[in-house]
Amino acid sequence: MHPLPESSDLPDMSSVQLARARLAGRVVPTPVLSATTLDQAMDCMLYWKCEHLQRTGAFKFRGASNAIARLRESGIEGDVATHSSGNHGAALALAARLDGRTAHVVMPINASPLKIEAVQRYGGQVHSCPATQAAREAGLASLVQSGYIPIPPYDHADIIAGQGTAALELLELHPGLDLLIAPVGGGGLIGGTALVGHHHGIPVLAAEPAGAADTAASLACGRRVESWQPDTIADGLRALVGVRNFLLIQKYVEQVLTVSDDEIRAAMRLFWQHTRMLIEPSSAVVIAAVRAYPDVFRGKRVGAIISGANISPADWINLAGDVES
Amino acid sequence: MHPLPESSDLPDMSSVQLARARLAGRVVPTPVLSATTLDQAMDCMLYWKCEHLQRTGAFKFRGASNAIARLRESGIEGDVATHSSGNHGAALALAARLDGRTAHVVMPINASPLKIEAVQRYGGQVHSCPATQAAREAGLASLVQSGYIPIPPYDHADIIAGQGTAALELLELHPGLDLLIAPVGGGGLIGGTALVGHHHGIPVLAAEPAGAADTAASLACGRRVESWQPDTIADGLRALVGVRNFLLIQKYVEQVLTVSDDEIRAAMRLFWQHTRMLIEPSSAVVIAAVRAYPDVFRGKRVGAIISGANISPADWINLAGDVES
Repeated sequence: MHPLPESSDLPDMSSVQLARARLAGRVVPTPVLSATTLDQAMDCMLYWKCEHLQRTGAFKFRGASNAIARLRESGIEGDVATHSSGNHGAALALAARLDGRTAHVVMPINASPLKIEAVQRYGGQVHSCPATQAAREAGLASLVQSGYIPIPPYDHADIIAGQGTAALELLELHPGLDLLIAPVGGGGLIGGTALVGHHHGIPVLAAEPAGAADTAASLACGRRVESWQPDTIADGLRALVGVRNFLLIQKYVEQVLTVSDDEIRAAMRLFWQHTRMLIEPSSAVVIAAVRAYPDVFRGKRVGAIISGANISPADWINLAGDVES
Repeated sequence: MHPLPESSDLPDMSSVQLARARLAGRVVPTPVLSATTLDQAMDCMLYWKCEHLQRTGAFKFRGASNAIARLRESGIEGDVATHSSGNHGAALALAARLDGRTAHVVMPINASPLKIEAVQRYGGQVHSCPATQAAREAGLASLVQSGYIPIPPYDHADIIAGQGTAALELLELHPGLDLLIAPVGGGGLIGGTALVGHHHGIPVLAAEPAGAADTAASLACGRRVESWQPDTIADGLRALVGVRNFLLIQKYVEQVLTVSDDEIRAAMRLFWQHTRMLIEPSSAVVIAAVRAYPDVFRGKRVGAIISGANISPADWINLAGDVES
């Protein structure tokens, strides 16, 4: 197995700054938007970073590109492997292909056709496996034994540093924000966001579905909870928080705000009503948190990372319900 | 009836430049996006201006705001009136409210609930009328007799100049474009875009649904066709091209490209697949035209105005069909 540069270390702010320089020209500098009527409905000023308009439709492309670029810098050749039911697989497939590599992605047989097709469209090789965590890990282990380089989806310094570049771009455009908020699942995005917020003296909050609130529980009991049966529509946030990710959250995240699936559904509708954007539940969790905790956000300038929009219109309606306006 | 400043004149490039200065801070400087996989599918480089992310969800807010600001500059007080089945009504409602006025909007009883609700949400007064052109005009005439100032949706110098600011912003970000393309319905957007393209020496094309191709027909016979029974899913493009608008198109638009409703539906799906954005048929017509006329666009850097996204997800599916990826 190839050694992974930095992978056993915690990233720091300079890792994010180096990633920012490395990713220039590779990632889309996604727009930051705001909408007066949304602000009125939310009772705060929301500046949202459109990572759902990132290449492959999610922020995941930042971390994957950073990890691949680090391999290249270190002179490490070879194909890469991961397991993913979602956006990381597609992101790694594209990042690898752009570097002349192939990504091998172990995917559970119940992964959405949309997400399987995306991995293939970006040149990735899909390896189907039974829909259990054990089968996914066994599938990846066997690929790694064949010589492929593992790139985990979130518990990895290069991934976390890459994801942090979204918050860095947001603060470059809007340096005067009072708060940052991002969703937490495995913790790649919130980990990088926390580094950036801490460095700039801006408090960082995490939003988590109540049905996958292992991070909130872990913070409450002071150590990382290692088992949780997720039950939430936010499919991108069902993973347990990673080890490095949890350490960063403990150090640098002010508070984890949990929201119900009904609050997530309402936030999907509200966001569409005011922005005409369909976002997946894992993104809407931050909008839901801003609504559910008005005392935290009232009158503040809030930077929010909208993480992805990989959901079909029909699935969106199935989850959020139809909307008239 | 109040006199309308400039309304009987054709706007020129300086009208657009003055509008640009006037609208700074009032309109959203919407992002210009691109997507590698979309470019591959389209065989050209597409830079699309996100006017569907404009306030009120469409470019119409630019023209309406410019018309209202011109009234203010000319010291003309009073409420305004228009007839609209769509986005102009909502745009005028908000522009008027922000200037301390009320907009009275004559709307046909079969207008979509989404669009009626939008006018009301922005503070407009809705006046229902039977769903005929004659009833709409009679309704507006009666409001004008009561002393309200008419602001027509497209055949008006201030409206055209305001709509042109979208293309101006696009060229400021991407001065090296080879072509500009915008949809044509009444011709407000294409009229302003044509002024801007001509001034910068960039050819301008219009995209029109075959079922509402009065502009293409008018160009072909050298005079404005005054009757056409529209039959297209692109509800924002069913209007006959206006008088001033047609003059500008004759002078400054290279070609009008017509597309079928099936091509529009396919373009809605394609655009979602590559950008995760739901756009209304009246916007997708430009994407459809780029696909339908590959010889015109191959290898070119194309600036496209995406005009609006005021369509519910359910209506989008009803028109475009479901998509899996």
